[in-house]
Amino acid sequence: MTASGRPVVLAVDLGGTAMKGAVVGDDRTVLAEIARPTPQTEIVGALRALLRDLRTSAHANGARVVAAGVVTPGMLDEARGIVHYASNLGWRDLPLRDILHDDLALPVAVGHDVRAAGLAERTVGAARAMQDFVLVPIGTGVAAALVSAGDTITGATGAAGEFGHIPVVPGGEQCTCGQRGCLEVYVSGAGVARRYRNAGGAELSTQEIAGRLGRDPLADRIWSEAVDVLAQGLDILTLLLDPNVIVLGGGFSEAGDGLFVPLAERMRAGLAWREPPQVVRSSLGSDAGRIGAGLLAFAAA
Amino acid sequence: MTASGRPVVLAVDLGGTAMKGAVVGDDRTVLAEIARPTPQTEIVGALRALLRDLRTSAHANGARVVAAGVVTPGMLDEARGIVHYASNLGWRDLPLRDILHDDLALPVAVGHDVRAAGLAERTVGAARAMQDFVLVPIGTGVAAALVSAGDTITGATGAAGEFGHIPVVPGGEQCTCGQRGCLEVYVSGAGVARRYRNAGGAELSTQEIAGRLGRDPLADRIWSEAVDVLAQGLDILTLLLDPNVIVLGGGFSEAGDGLFVPLAERMRAGLAWREPPQVVRSSLGSDAGRIGAGLLAFAAA
Repeated sequence: MTASGRPVVLAVDLGGTAMKGAVVGDDRTVLAEIARPTPQTEIVGALRALLRDLRTSAHANGARVVAAGVVTPGMLDEARGIVHYASNLGWRDLPLRDILHDDLALPVAVGHDVRAAGLAERTVGAARAMQDFVLVPIGTGVAAALVSAGDTITGATGAAGEFGHIPVVPGGEQCTCGQRGCLEVYVSGAGVARRYRNAGGAELSTQEIAGRLGRDPLADRIWSEAVDVLAQGLDILTLLLDPNVIVLGGGFSEAGDGLFVPLAERMRAGLAWREPPQVVRSSLGSDAGRIGAGLLAFAAA
Repeated sequence: MTASGRPVVLAVDLGGTAMKGAVVGDDRTVLAEIARPTPQTEIVGALRALLRDLRTSAHANGARVVAAGVVTPGMLDEARGIVHYASNLGWRDLPLRDILHDDLALPVAVGHDVRAAGLAERTVGAARAMQDFVLVPIGTGVAAALVSAGDTITGATGAAGEFGHIPVVPGGEQCTCGQRGCLEVYVSGAGVARRYRNAGGAELSTQEIAGRLGRDPLADRIWSEAVDVLAQGLDILTLLLDPNVIVLGGGFSEAGDGLFVPLAERMRAGLAWREPPQVVRSSLGSDAGRIGAGLLAFAAA
């Protein structure tokens, strides 16, 4: 380690399936990247090993590591760095910041993956300099980062932003969460693929289904229903939070005009006296969480 | 006017049907009250007259008027004191603060009625010292004040909190706003009375309908549907904003156990992995807006 080296941080987006880590400079250039599958057990050990390996890469680049940032799904106390509950990591009340700080002897920031992605979109992405915006990543599931007057809404217990589970269709189809009619039953990657299959379609990914639009009536119907429910959900967000812009991320947003054109139309049709906000595609894509982890790390350094 | 008199403010809650004004001391005691019907036209003139009469009352009490606060419905720019749009006052882009300041030669605060009521509930009411809470006044219509980390969410255009018009029943019954399936179609005072009548019931107020619960099957059904939709809406707020407490205000909240007991049950049934927040009745009732106007006035003094 050279005390005079370039200051960098270790940034990790820890998800249920992958751990995506990078060594990031203060101009946000990426000096090194390491991605590994998230193991089924001993996730903390794997995360510690990933961070140590990132630090070794940083030193090999002659850089000076000033902090680390890790973002995770679940319910978090970001101020104290505690993950209260993360179902797909199997964690409960884990003092992640203290554990990593003991290991690395560095300032460590722990954040929520989607809220950190929102911070990244706001700082360097599609919502740059926006004070009131919403980021909705639509992947296997759906979540949201809600930003009001420049502050991310975290809620009383760190559980704000559960947009995928808002009940939008009373008595609707069963969700994996145990409830019925949740938004992500209809709109998510998993939901669209399952509904297509259950309606007699082949075993296709949401991307493949989106690729059949205009040629496959079943794909058209399932997709149209997804757009209807997404428009309803985004109208709810608009009426409650009045954002400048809504940023859509995740695989779903890659459908382009097949999504954004009907979505804008139906959002407008569902609002009585106001215009819908602009709806744009994320410019950071699946890197947003990791970029947010880097921003949190520099803020903690 | 005695320069050494007790400091007071003029506080007015200007609604579509009534103007409720008071002279309020810094310990929040009310020295004088004047309530008048809101006229159909010349509302600004009537408001100015009301404020001048309140000032006269203040001086008659030997008090020193340090500021005025006026709260209104609609879309507002609170920082600049402009009412962009208030349909039931017939106002568009009205520079209310400047108009009143010219008239009174006093600091004037202009606020949103429901958000000011939320400030009052948080400062002296049922959400005292809560950092994350929601106030939902249910009267003729429905709105919400959303407070996150101690800050009221106003939105990019001052239009946040339109809880009454979130679309909760896709393709549902017609709302006065022109859309279908809005929450307030089912839950508001006007909505419950209209649905009871349209289902063959008598011309009764919502309060009268609530008074027939357990004895009138039609009242039971309409009320139960209102509670279902309210539970759905409050679950949406809970999942998005994660409040500590939800405060219900307005005439609807006076139904007591007939509302709060089934509501808590159905909110819990609609949430998969988390407890619902506490739901309590407003302790300030219909004075909350006017009390909020007084708080805003003292803050501007």
